[in-house]
Amino acid sequence: MKKSRWIDISVPLRDGMVHWPDNPPVRIERILDLDRGDLATVSKISMGSHTGTHMDAPLHFVQKGAGMDQMPIDATVGLARVIEIRDRKSIRLKELQHYHIRSGERILFKTKNSGRCWKSDKFVKEFVYLSTEAAIELARIKVRTVGIDYLSIGGYKQNGLEVHRTLLSQGIWVIEGLDLSKVEPGFYDLICLPLKMAQGDGAPARAILKKLGGTR
Amino acid sequence: MKKSRWIDISVPLRDGMVHWPDNPPVRIERILDLDRGDLATVSKISMGSHTGTHMDAPLHFVQKGAGMDQMPIDATVGLARVIEIRDRKSIRLKELQHYHIRSGERILFKTKNSGRCWKSDKFVKEFVYLSTEAAIELARIKVRTVGIDYLSIGGYKQNGLEVHRTLLSQGIWVIEGLDLSKVEPGFYDLICLPLKMAQGDGAPARAILKKLGGTR
Repeated sequence: MKKSRWIDISVPLRDGMVHWPDNPPVRIERILDLDRGDLATVSKISMGSHTGTHMDAPLHFVQKGAGMDQMPIDATVGLARVIEIRDRKSIRLKELQHYHIRSGERILFKTKNSGRCWKSDKFVKEFVYLSTEAAIELARIKVRTVGIDYLSIGGYKQNGLEVHRTLLSQGIWVIEGLDLSKVEPGFYDLICLPLKMAQGDGAPARAILKKLGGTR
Repeated sequence: MKKSRWIDISVPLRDGMVHWPDNPPVRIERILDLDRGDLATVSKISMGSHTGTHMDAPLHFVQKGAGMDQMPIDATVGLARVIEIRDRKSIRLKELQHYHIRSGERILFKTKNSGRCWKSDKFVKEFVYLSTEAAIELARIKVRTVGIDYLSIGGYKQNGLEVHRTLLSQGIWVIEGLDLSKVEPGFYDLICLPLKMAQGDGAPARAILKKLGGTR
């Protein structure tokens, strides 16, 4: 059988993994275990709704905004473009303008975060984030979806509020916590499915990419 | 834009929803809330690894079996067949044999469960399950994946151990907790993505179907 060409761009969920500073820790423990003589192995999971690879719903920053369970599937299933950002600090308007982004595009930003931030269980404060001016431009263009390769689209103690509100209030769906280290820039088939959290502000998700032109 | 033809076959995750009797309860609480004056809305999730729509890894019933994070993507992304079962008690070999199931197929069983069991937050003990003889036959055929529309592929206090072991020990991936009430029997494009739980015995998942011949 032909080897699948899907690239997994989700980070593994692990006990004690990195999380956003004021969010709950990630705890995964075996409550039943074949190795201890139980009849099956079963785990208990405790985590925040914005853990690891996850999505933000408008509700996360917009009162009475749509919840995760209201996301149209085509927000995250379909053609997507991976754009590689060179800037080591933030995604600025100037760099963005090279790419002639169009209305309706699903854009995933591969930054220096992918090769660096996921190596540690300690939260990395200086991750590459979307500048406010770039967020305003993406909202103006009306992209469909924006993804980034660490835990927030906005900077830590920087512009998180403005960036989230700018995108989410315009109905732009946000994927955070991607690992794009194995992905070259270009066009892909994207599948990102978040858990169907009823009236969820966000939800952990699994995301995969396949280079366009490959076979399923 | 054309309306998406994806059918969501996942059950919503809700605080207090039904769960397998000896598994942890499902607790979802807002720890930050715009409605209470916080700057964002964020939730904490606590649940078992086999909550709602989810998958079982071999590790669930097989010592040193593969974990959720080792699942090949093609186990749950690709062509699938929805078979409607008339039997109100279990999926028996006799009914199964009508369908001439072939090696490598992804089979989702739509039973009476879909229209009945998800209406209650109380666990339904008498759900339709896979008989042991049918499980042995599916393992012999070497199907790729088997899905069912309530919380276990095996019966409650019946044959859970045998059915799980029969399938999982043969590397057959199992999807449980589907809601197939909106789905007619037939062939579909399946996407089911479980969370990437490191060495996970199972994981909550999101699953969608699209009738073959539709456009993405």
